[in-house]
Amino acid sequence: MKLLEDRIRRDGTVKPGNVLKVDAFLNHQCDVALFDAMGAEWARLFAGKRVDKIVTIEASGIGIACIAARHFGNVPVVFAKKTQSINLDGDQYVSSIYSFTKQREYPVIVAKRFLSTGEHVLLIDDFLANGNALHGLIDICNHAGAVIEGIGIAIEKGFQDGGRKIREAGYDIRSLAIVTAMDARTGTVDFARSEPTD
Amino acid sequence: MKLLEDRIRRDGTVKPGNVLKVDAFLNHQCDVALFDAMGAEWARLFAGKRVDKIVTIEASGIGIACIAARHFGNVPVVFAKKTQSINLDGDQYVSSIYSFTKQREYPVIVAKRFLSTGEHVLLIDDFLANGNALHGLIDICNHAGAVIEGIGIAIEKGFQDGGRKIREAGYDIRSLAIVTAMDARTGTVDFARSEPTD
Repeated sequence: MKLLEDRIRRDGTVKPGNVLKVDAFLNHQCDVALFDAMGAEWARLFAGKRVDKIVTIEASGIGIACIAARHFGNVPVVFAKKTQSINLDGDQYVSSIYSFTKQREYPVIVAKRFLSTGEHVLLIDDFLANGNALHGLIDICNHAGAVIEGIGIAIEKGFQDGGRKIREAGYDIRSLAIVTAMDARTGTVDFARSEPTD
Repeated sequence: MKLLEDRIRRDGTVKPGNVLKVDAFLNHQCDVALFDAMGAEWARLFAGKRVDKIVTIEASGIGIACIAARHFGNVPVVFAKKTQSINLDGDQYVSSIYSFTKQREYPVIVAKRFLSTGEHVLLIDDFLANGNALHGLIDICNHAGAVIEGIGIAIEKGFQDGGRKIREAGYDIRSLAIVTAMDARTGTVDFARSEPTD
C-alpha cells in the first residue's frame, strides 16, 4: 500500500538492530485518516470473505482494528489482553507469548464468551516480525473453534520469518507494507513490490 | 447519553464491590457503531473548542479515542503507555498512578515529541471512578504545557469522588453516562439525569 510505504519512508525511523520506529503515526501517536485508508484496503483485499468479528491484541492493534471494523459492516472488535485484572472474570482462553520489544513473556487472554465456535474472524495487528503475538492470537482462535478468514497486518518485517511460517501453515496474510531491508546508517527502508492492484 | 445508558442496562453486569463490567461492548469486545455515536456526542458537547489532538491511555481508551477523532477533523490521537519498552526512546513525560483494577502502581508515559506546549488537547477515557488514570494524563499535559480543553469520559462512577475533584479543579468533564448507584443483587444501575439537550 503506497500510502503506508510513503509514510514509513517519511516519518518512520530506522534504529540499529533492525528496529523500525513508527510511533509518529501508528503505535503511540495515531493518524486516524491513515488508519481509515488501511481499513478500506483490507476490506478490498478480503472482499467476499465472511467476517463476523475482528480480533486483535492490546495495545497498538486496537485503534487500527476499531477503525478497520467500520469497513467490515461495524463488526465487533475483540482485543486480547496481556495482563490479568479483577475485571477479567469467567472462563478465558489463555496463550503465552514472548515479546522482544517488552523483553518478557506475557499471557494473551480472551474471555470465552467473546469468541465462539464457528465464528469467522479477521485478525488485525500493527506489526508482524517473528510472529509471536500472532501465534498467540491464532492459538486462542483455534482453541475457540473460530475460523480465521484472514490476517491483516500493517507492517511486516519480511526479512524475519514470522510471515513465511504462518503463510506456510495456510493462513491468508495481507500485509500493507512488507519491509525487505532497512539501514540504520542511511535511514533507508526497502519494501517488497506492492500488490499489482494496489 | 441515552444510547449508552440503555446499553449499560442491557449488557452491563454489576458485580459486588461496585464493579460495573462493560466488557461486552466497551473494553474487551468493542461495539464500534456505539463508539461512533459516542464520538459524535463528544463533538457536539465540545463544539467550538479548539482540539489539536486527543490524548488517551492504553488500552481501553484507544479504540474510543481513535473513532472519536474522526468527529474532530481526524486530529492525531496520542495514547499514553503503561510500560516501558525498547520502542520508547527519547525524552518522555512520565507520571505514576495506582490502578485498583490491576492492583498495582504503574507509570504513564508519553514521548515528549508527541505533546507540545500550547497544543490544545481533549482527553478521552472509558472510565472515571477515583480519577487516578485521569490525574496521570492531566499531570503529563501540564508538564508539557498543553492546554486541556475538555475531558470526555464514557462512564463515570458518580458515587466516587474522582469526577467531583477534577471538576472542582476547573476541568470541563463530559461523561456520557454517570452512574449514581448500582446493586449487584438486583443488577440495577441508576444514572444521573442526562443533559437536557441529549
